[in-house]
Amino acid sequence: MDQVAKPLQILQNALNKNVLVCVKGNKEYRGILTGYDQHMNLVLKNAEEFSDNQSKGTYPIVVVRGDNVIYISPS
Amino acid sequence: MDQVAKPLQILQNALNKNVLVCVKGNKEYRGILTGYDQHMNLVLKNAEEFSDNQSKGTYPIVVVRGDNVIYISPS
Amino acid sequence: MDQVAKPLQILQNALNKNVLVCVKGNKEYRGILTGYDQHMNLVLKNAEEFSDNQSKGTYPIVVVRGDNVIYISPS
Amino acid sequence: MDQVAKPLQILQNALNKNVLVCVKGNKEYRGILTGYDQHMNLVLKNAEEFSDNQSKGTYPIVVVRGDNVIYISPS
Amino acid sequence: MDQVAKPLQILQNALNKNVLVCVKGNKEYRGILTGYDQHMNLVLKNAEEFSDNQSKGTYPIVVVRGDNVIYISPS
Amino acid sequence: MDQVAKPLQILQNALNKNVLVCVKGNKEYRGILTGYDQHMNLVLKNAEEFSDNQSKGTYPIVVVRGDNVIYISPS
Amino acid sequence: MDQVAKPLQILQNALNKNVLVCVKGNKEYRGILTGYDQHMNLVLKNAEEFSDNQSKGTYPIVVVRGDNVIYISPS
Repeated sequence: MDQVAKPLQILQNALNKNVLVCVKGNKEYRGILTGYDQHMNLVLKNAEEFSDNQSKGTYPIVVVRGDNVIYISPS
Repeated sequence: MDQVAKPLQILQNALNKNVLVCVKGNKEYRGILTGYDQHMNLVLKNAEEFSDNQSKGTYPIVVVRGDNVIYISPS
Repeated sequence: MDQVAKPLQILQNALNKNVLVCVKGNKEYRGILTGYDQHMNLVLKNAEEFSDNQSKGTYPIVVVRGDNVIYISPS
Repeated sequence: MDQVAKPLQILQNALNKNVLVCVKGNKEYRGILTGYDQHMNLVLKNAEEFSDNQSKGTYPIVVVRGDNVIYISPS
Repeated sequence: MDQVAKPLQILQNALNKNVLVCVKGNKEYRGILTGYDQHMNLVLKNAEEFSDNQSKGTYPIVVVRGDNVIYISPS
Repeated sequence: MDQVAKPLQILQNALNKNVLVCVKGNKEYRGILTGYDQHMNLVLKNAEEFSDNQSKGTYPIVVVRGDNVIYISPS
Repeated sequence: MDQVAKPLQILQNALNKNVLVCVKGNKEYRGILTGYDQHMNLVLKNAEEFSDNQSKGTYPIVVVRGDNVIYISPS
């Protein structure tokens, strides 16, 4: 199983890079991933929230709870 | 993994500061974070509740259950 | 982490005092907190149930399951 | 913490007495509590089911799964 | 706690008898309980499925996942 | 408890036979059960997906996550 | 139980191949499976997102959280 990319390793590689995070309820967050833990709780810096593709506000720092995350995409 | 900001560490840094907490069902709480635990259960002081951006009331102290939290943003 | 108010400690401090409990589905309970456990299951005495701000009945004693609790506010 | 009424202790005290059980989806059960376990799975004897306050049937014995319970009130 | 009827014990007593199983989404199953496990996963023989009180089909054997069970009633 | 049919044992007996799997959201899968694990994650071969009784496509192999399974019926 | 295909083994066999992943809320992802873990968190490369059969965008890499996965089909 050497060639398997573990999901948390992808998060580790995405540190300090832009990511798109999609959570339940059609909400999205774009920002710089500055942290995470094994539950996929995420820390984003300079994050913008989108709901149905409309910007809903920006946050200097935001902790997104992993339980509601659908996907995370480094960009 | 030294430079990773753990989500709970962000909460620790936000103690006694204003935070915005968004929970399922389009509810938001603004108040001073005075406590938390490893389940992301939160204690807010002087909290105001918003539903669909309308103020719904204020609470001297409120314990928000972590299970329903979508995100927490120190402001 | 000495100054952190643990959520369960807030419940302990609220024993025998009035609390407002909000659960999923827009239901609220007001009563005297007489017990709790580590899952945030709660025991309320002389509790009144509200749904969409309408009183729905009173209960001499009620055990509210923690899983559905959104927040608890001592008043 | 001597004076704390543990939720399961309330169930223990309610054994062989009438209880009202409210579960998700606006369903209620009234009957005699004859058993429970630590997950708040419940056993009711001579139970009547209500949905939106309409009687929906009676059951000599019913096991209600704790996961969907919102509250239990001994009466 | 000698006189407490444990929920799983009720299932044990109901083996090889007719039961009514109600699951989330207004679905019901009537059949002979031939097995269960500690998660309340159930095995029914000669089961009939009902949705909103309409028969939806019969199954010689069906494994119902405990997670979605609301109640089980031996009849 | 010798005569109890354990749910996972039913799956074991159903290996390499046709099964009907119903998951949340009114989706059904018909195919040959070629594997499972203790979480009731399932492997189906030559599976056809149905939504509201309409065929939605076929899959040479599909892994169905146990968490969303409502029932499994060997046919 | 030698002939049982374990669900995670199917994912292992699907590494570096195209898969279709269906998640709750009628969302689908097509891409090359480059990783997974025991929670069925998945890593897809060159992934395309579909919602109600409409393409919604492409992602060079995406981590899909296992909790919301309904099924995975290697193609």
